[in-house]
Amino acid sequence: MDVDVTVFEQRRQALKESLRVRGLPALLVSHAANRWYLSGFELADSQCNESAGWLVITAHGGDTLLTDPRFEEAARRVWSDEIVIYSSRKMEVVGAFLKSLNPPALGFEPRSLCVRDYERLREFVALTPTEGLVEDLRVIKDADEIRRMEASCVLNERVMLALPERLVPGMTEAQASWEVERLFREGGASGLAFPTIVGAGVNAALPHAEPGQDRLPAQGLVLVDAGGRLDAYCSDQTRTFWLGSEPSDRFRHVLALVREAQRRAIEYIRPGAPIAESYHLVRRFFEEHGVADRFTHGLGHGVGLETHEAPSLSSQSRDVFRPGMVVTVEPGLYWPDWGGVRWEHMVLVTENGCRVL
Amino acid sequence: MDVDVTVFEQRRQALKESLRVRGLPALLVSHAANRWYLSGFELADSQCNESAGWLVITAHGGDTLLTDPRFEEAARRVWSDEIVIYSSRKMEVVGAFLKSLNPPALGFEPRSLCVRDYERLREFVALTPTEGLVEDLRVIKDADEIRRMEASCVLNERVMLALPERLVPGMTEAQASWEVERLFREGGASGLAFPTIVGAGVNAALPHAEPGQDRLPAQGLVLVDAGGRLDAYCSDQTRTFWLGSEPSDRFRHVLALVREAQRRAIEYIRPGAPIAESYHLVRRFFEEHGVADRFTHGLGHGVGLETHEAPSLSSQSRDVFRPGMVVTVEPGLYWPDWGGVRWEHMVLVTENGCRVL
Repeated sequence: MDVDVTVFEQRRQALKESLRVRGLPALLVSHAANRWYLSGFELADSQCNESAGWLVITAHGGDTLLTDPRFEEAARRVWSDEIVIYSSRKMEVVGAFLKSLNPPALGFEPRSLCVRDYERLREFVALTPTEGLVEDLRVIKDADEIRRMEASCVLNERVMLALPERLVPGMTEAQASWEVERLFREGGASGLAFPTIVGAGVNAALPHAEPGQDRLPAQGLVLVDAGGRLDAYCSDQTRTFWLGSEPSDRFRHVLALVREAQRRAIEYIRPGAPIAESYHLVRRFFEEHGVADRFTHGLGHGVGLETHEAPSLSSQSRDVFRPGMVVTVEPGLYWPDWGGVRWEHMVLVTENGCRVL
Repeated sequence: MDVDVTVFEQRRQALKESLRVRGLPALLVSHAANRWYLSGFELADSQCNESAGWLVITAHGGDTLLTDPRFEEAARRVWSDEIVIYSSRKMEVVGAFLKSLNPPALGFEPRSLCVRDYERLREFVALTPTEGLVEDLRVIKDADEIRRMEASCVLNERVMLALPERLVPGMTEAQASWEVERLFREGGASGLAFPTIVGAGVNAALPHAEPGQDRLPAQGLVLVDAGGRLDAYCSDQTRTFWLGSEPSDRFRHVLALVREAQRRAIEYIRPGAPIAESYHLVRRFFEEHGVADRFTHGLGHGVGLETHEAPSLSSQSRDVFRPGMVVTVEPGLYWPDWGGVRWEHMVLVTENGCRVL
């Protein structure tokens, strides 16, 4: 998909407005997904301990991208404003640049700056912690993002539809997980959004089931929770399949409960509706059927440049649904000695309700 | 490969000794690779902004693994000591636990703890910054690690050998990069060690060439820098291939220079030899041939649980080679209007020299 640079410019303008409202002269952006959101430059750091670069967005002036020589070429392709290149003496170069700001003071992202870099930079400038300035913008997806997320979700749907005939009894969970990944990658994904979960039988009851050497049953359930990254945006869906001839009555019953809970939650989601209530209504529905203690996680989460982002569909939420939010709706029921069923869709909050992507 | 828990226990004992020498009562381990090195628990965090858990290693007492409910099952499989499970109130639970230590004080890893978590934890305990306590241990690979790195390197070699017949003129760099990944994954790798670099023609001169829609030439060079992760350990190798009938004289000449530089560096590496000199001797060799300005990066780096780790083979190094180090040796020469040649092997420093893995 082509990169429309005006989209990034618009997002920077929105951030500048937010800085002005808060009286912050500038923000040091160190979180990789935030960096890409504002610039189109490097969505991920290839190692968690190696940053591809930082942005400095000012309230009133120009913006700057700071990176190392390996990324200079890529930076110039997407960034027409000032670029500062540092080599091995990163902190001296970045520090001197920050000191040259007028005033030499800025906000930073305390979740995405390590203590070591913070202590070094503090020698040069005054740093003020901020909370989710860019993340708050990212919660509401713009038209460009919705277009990309729809495409990403379409691919996920295609993968899920192709899976049943590829999930062959006797293959290992790890092999099944590689099948999933191949389908995503051959469908154009740049990678997975998160490590695929494949849980056969009782393994489906483990919330973090790493696909192992256990084999898919000739007759039984298999839970697949998978997502890809397409044109930068993540998808995240879960299906629970039945292998073999006829699904057991228990599977059919549990699946019907989970899907009905999901249907009710999706029916509920609309602008202005409290998010916590989406969780509570599912919980109450499960309570009515005596299985609420088997629903052991939240109802869903925001998804976008990251698999897990705001908002969280949990009982703790104090937010309401707003148009442009994209969230997962993924009720599940689990029994350690039997297995589990989870069903997950991604949903876009629209002006007067919501739409399954 | 089977997990031998005594290996992790031995590493914790070595760390405890290091803590005692420094008079530190305990260390909070937040860096994912360090966590795995000491426990076998979760090598990577699935998102950079979401930790799978932390370790607390004490100088004189027991050790503790702190994680969230999703990972409890995986934790119990590898950790027989104390496990603390936190849910949404992570910092309160972790903080209370740290406060219960005797004394309530410990070292932490300032490169791998974000400012936000640090500020929260400081309310509970005294935190002292440390520098590379676990990384210093990881520099010298133990027998278990050497076994795994050899296996990882053998797979890399197989991939590189299989490549020439799969690099077909007209295929895009992105397609070639996916071929590389398939070969690694179908060979047993759990993933790539880093995003594959495929640079056709002039793109080979870009140090961070993201494989794009440019096509492999009918006649010309292609640089492939790739590595996989097998049994937790990374490999990293580079080859520069010639597609078409006869390599050009220029390609043959540049390749011969690069390989001779590599040969000399490998011949030099032995216990006690200053690391910086390995870089300088290559640089001098290139100077003699009037191409030193085309050698634009370091000579290599340590590799292990991470693709880039200590030691760095650069002019800045003050360390000497020691038995058990595993480093890449990767001289390269680049011309933006022509392309580039890099050749990379992984080398294990032995008791009396070194050995190409």
